[in-house]
Amino acid sequence: MNYCSQCGAPVIQTIPPGDNLPRHVCRQCELIHYHNPKIVAGCIPEWEDQILLCRRAIEPRSGFWTFPAGFMEIGESTEQAAIRETKEEAQADVEIAALHAVLSLPHIGQVYLVFRGRMLTPAYEAGTESLEVRMFPLSAIPWEQIAFPVVHEALRRYVGDVTNGRFQLHLASLPDRLLA
Amino acid sequence: MNYCSQCGAPVIQTIPPGDNLPRHVCRQCELIHYHNPKIVAGCIPEWEDQILLCRRAIEPRSGFWTFPAGFMEIGESTEQAAIRETKEEAQADVEIAALHAVLSLPHIGQVYLVFRGRMLTPAYEAGTESLEVRMFPLSAIPWEQIAFPVVHEALRRYVGDVTNGRFQLHLASLPDRLLA
Repeated sequence: MNYCSQCGAPVIQTIPPGDNLPRHVCRQCELIHYHNPKIVAGCIPEWEDQILLCRRAIEPRSGFWTFPAGFMEIGESTEQAAIRETKEEAQADVEIAALHAVLSLPHIGQVYLVFRGRMLTPAYEAGTESLEVRMFPLSAIPWEQIAFPVVHEALRRYVGDVTNGRFQLHLASLPDRLLA
Repeated sequence: MNYCSQCGAPVIQTIPPGDNLPRHVCRQCELIHYHNPKIVAGCIPEWEDQILLCRRAIEPRSGFWTFPAGFMEIGESTEQAAIRETKEEAQADVEIAALHAVLSLPHIGQVYLVFRGRMLTPAYEAGTESLEVRMFPLSAIPWEQIAFPVVHEALRRYVGDVTNGRFQLHLASLPDRLLA
């Protein structure tokens, strides 16, 4: 950030009075610009014993596999965001079954909220951001071809829950070394 | 948003190619500026049969009661944010017991992640953003003096869980009428 989005004057980095972190502050209109973590809403769509994964058509990690996930928008709930991403990327209709994981990525300022979604029908198709969408039995998840460590981690914990016969909410933070 | 924070040129509102929502786009450097929901991390600090609430010293709703909560920062996990807010606002040390609620406020672009926190000691004190911090038995929660509907909702569900003798994760979205 170089300029104030409100008045267009240059911003400086400084710790505002009463604060304890450096912020971008406008020298002209004095507005403080805060930058906060973004929510990525994701969904693991389930149909019988299989889950639906998408092969990314866009960078980063084009060609690699993920469950539907994307940045939450203003005006929707976390569940609506997960349902929308599933529709956009996999043309599939789900209802939210439960929250599976809250995975923080502190160093890049993202929080993944990953839901389990019950597919309403076994219909799916690649959306514009996907090269291919496919149903996988858990024994055939393409572990070596997963797009991001956070997706790998969410799927690993999902398979663990299925194996244990008990779903739980996973709270975790991904260390930098996993994401380098 | 009036100006591009990268180059300082005026921005326009338009739907970028491949997108379906209007965004602020720079006419000069073509950067698309996305605005996403913010995470508010909160904590209900527990000590024996009581919880810790803070009376706000800052607007909005100065003088009204809340549990510790505030905007999550880049560089921390959701749990760390809840622990930090509890320290800042109530000078209390907690460890996270569980995620209590994920409450979306779509029309103002906020998502509350409210945790239950076990106080490590019964020590607390008003931080700079609090007028007063006090321990409440659940029967004495000042319901008429709660700062925000989302805080009221989280506390109401918390008391319900305690009454039922079973904690669960609450996923909900607060309708506009509650927040007018």
